[in-house]
Amino acid sequence: MRRRSEGGRAIGRVSERIERWTGGGDKGYGAEFARAYDEGLRDLWRRDTNELGKILLCRAENKLESTTRLVQELNQAKAFPANKLGYQDYKGMVELREAVSRYANRHICKSARMEPEDLMVSAGCGVVLENCFFCFCDYGDACLVPAPYYGQFGRDLGMRAGVEIVKVHPSSASADRFGKLSVEDLQAAYTPKCKVLLLTNPHNPLGIVHSKADLIAVLRWAQSLDLHVISDEIYACSVYKNKDDFVSLADLVSELELPDEHWVQTHCHTVFGFSKDFGASGLRIGALHSKNSAIVHAWNALGYSCAISSSCQWDFAAVLGKDEFVADFLAENARCLAQASEKLTSALQQAGIPFVGEPSAGLFLFIDLRGLLEDNSFDAERKLWSRLVSRGVVLNPGQSCGMKTPGYFRLCFAWMSDPSCLPVAVERIASLR
Amino acid sequence: MRRRSEGGRAIGRVSERIERWTGGGDKGYGAEFARAYDEGLRDLWRRDTNELGKILLCRAENKLESTTRLVQELNQAKAFPANKLGYQDYKGMVELREAVSRYANRHICKSARMEPEDLMVSAGCGVVLENCFFCFCDYGDACLVPAPYYGQFGRDLGMRAGVEIVKVHPSSASADRFGKLSVEDLQAAYTPKCKVLLLTNPHNPLGIVHSKADLIAVLRWAQSLDLHVISDEIYACSVYKNKDDFVSLADLVSELELPDEHWVQTHCHTVFGFSKDFGASGLRIGALHSKNSAIVHAWNALGYSCAISSSCQWDFAAVLGKDEFVADFLAENARCLAQASEKLTSALQQAGIPFVGEPSAGLFLFIDLRGLLEDNSFDAERKLWSRLVSRGVVLNPGQSCGMKTPGYFRLCFAWMSDPSCLPVAVERIASLR
Repeated sequence: MRRRSEGGRAIGRVSERIERWTGGGDKGYGAEFARAYDEGLRDLWRRDTNELGKILLCRAENKLESTTRLVQELNQAKAFPANKLGYQDYKGMVELREAVSRYANRHICKSARMEPEDLMVSAGCGVVLENCFFCFCDYGDACLVPAPYYGQFGRDLGMRAGVEIVKVHPSSASADRFGKLSVEDLQAAYTPKCKVLLLTNPHNPLGIVHSKADLIAVLRWAQSLDLHVISDEIYACSVYKNKDDFVSLADLVSELELPDEHWVQTHCHTVFGFSKDFGASGLRIGALHSKNSAIVHAWNALGYSCAISSSCQWDFAAVLGKDEFVADFLAENARCLAQASEKLTSALQQAGIPFVGEPSAGLFLFIDLRGLLEDNSFDAERKLWSRLVSRGVVLNPGQSCGMKTPGYFRLCFAWMSDPSCLPVAVERIASLR
Repeated sequence: MRRRSEGGRAIGRVSERIERWTGGGDKGYGAEFARAYDEGLRDLWRRDTNELGKILLCRAENKLESTTRLVQELNQAKAFPANKLGYQDYKGMVELREAVSRYANRHICKSARMEPEDLMVSAGCGVVLENCFFCFCDYGDACLVPAPYYGQFGRDLGMRAGVEIVKVHPSSASADRFGKLSVEDLQAAYTPKCKVLLLTNPHNPLGIVHSKADLIAVLRWAQSLDLHVISDEIYACSVYKNKDDFVSLADLVSELELPDEHWVQTHCHTVFGFSKDFGASGLRIGALHSKNSAIVHAWNALGYSCAISSSCQWDFAAVLGKDEFVADFLAENARCLAQASEKLTSALQQAGIPFVGEPSAGLFLFIDLRGLLEDNSFDAERKLWSRLVSRGVVLNPGQSCGMKTPGYFRLCFAWMSDPSCLPVAVERIASLR
């Protein structure tokens, strides 16, 4: 053990299982990424006043103008009552679960109904997933995840629950295959250790939605192997274009006449939340819909260590109960996202920088900078990332999203409140050529 | 797999590692305990209006009159600002950590200072402990816990982190040894799998505080084996008698001239919170003090899945910042607890029902009903528990607190808001003779 001290503190050790996951935000980048981000915060781009400032496009948070209205509503919730100060249902207070049910049935589901008794609400979608993996897997089991994927899935699944990701790569290297679900690719990656298939719809980092036909094919395949299917729909209400293309897993399984109804009820689970669609990641509110009663029962224990403050549950239930506000808020959000996305994609097209697919949802897209790599390696990707940082643009490297092809980057377009930074960022990227 | 459905839901399965811990609240009692509790809620004792109602003395929550003032203060916090709506520091917002530091230095520590940068604040003490065990142990490692102990430690340590409890029983069977820390008993229980010693001070379920001399002896022993020591001080500010007898681990290690300062900094950790001392278990606010920088660093990842809602952090920081309110609140709390405890112990003494030690802290004491057992077995304890339930008194059986001697029960005296139920409960218990 190292025996160093600094300022009355000592550099101790943590267990290997934890140390493995606490190296830093982006795979391998760790301290370097944190430094670029912190420097960016201190010298942030602002129109007119700091045009040479850093443009941070590396956080999937929505800070566009439309999201500021939420806090006013939160502050208007009626006084928190004394009888909610004690322990509450660890699956979430009934007031909140009823409000979430109402919200989901209006804004996520088309035909299905999410009943309050099938909903569990905990401190963010990360821990909702973690709990699912504790329930469906033993240590060392695995989960199929189509790549590219959200960079923190590795930690969400691995750090506490000890579940490994088995990446599903498209068999063809052509970029337009990314994000397209394919039974062949899944079958090629599958091993008997895989107990779960984790989908992200709308897709992160691609910003696309999965087609109904692809989802159905994949569901039938998953059923044939008795896999659990988790659909992470944390961006369900950030679809800003062709809204009807998005289909929730909850709808899909209620519409489909799958041969085994029992499998549908026990093995299909939908995750969604309010961090992204409401620009409220600090409130830590994530939800699970499942008709598997063993899960619901287990949550009475699992939910204890990730329960949401009752005062926040109370306030947020009040906000969600305002139908008109919620509908307006989401519509205005979609408008702002569409605007920012349009500004970005026009600039990219004008600069001749390709991106994957036709983004219509989420807070990001995936750009293809393979043309700027020195060679076809992740070392070259990292060098390119550093060059981008030195030009004042911070992106997420594709490596952190599980890519096997170097040269792609996730670009989050809604964290900077003023979308007029986006063409500036594109110019800076293009200037590297 | 069983293939049953009910009301559009299906009875699925969860992994063994989770199923083991989700059987119910009290060890082995499970559904039966839940039923007694729920029935109690529906027919609760009330002075004058329901004198034959159930008296629930099985939850360590403070609902005495004094705690109702907190909610007024919470509701007075100034408006939650929009810039706190996004992701916050997973160790807790700086506003809250500064307020917690100020609070701890006034009300928990006498000589030591808990600095904000050594504090981590998460969703309750349960998950704070869980995170510690993830950091200090690998799957299958063990933790020494003097028995009797808080009934949910098994789950807090075991369910996710996979750490087993090694019980430390007093070598002599005489009741007055319970709760007295002894190096001999610890040494007798120790195995090389033990990586941590978990103390609870003030003690749950005994309601006593550990003496400074005993703590020092145990610390020196733990150091000789390079064990981590966690002091769970969740009842630190519920000491209602002989307040100066309580010594926080943070004070102890700063006063002691232990030969190895590095061990002190890396291996001694203090847990405290606001669920008990503020009657606010629904807010889910627990804290860890540690000078081990590896822990602090790891919390940047671990804290993600158990972060407190930023709106609640904001409100609670405002409350803790009001020095006068906090001091008054704690003093009034102590007065109410002393009153309830006095009412209870007088009634017990009058009825000739023994209890362990001289309770001066916490929300409970441990009564000795061995004289009412049919025989010296846990089956007999369970029968007695059921007879008590049928008389309208719900207690926690000693078995759920890790006892090896049957016949003891934890009695929580602050969950029923009106302490005049306590002599009634004692009468009901005594009537079983």
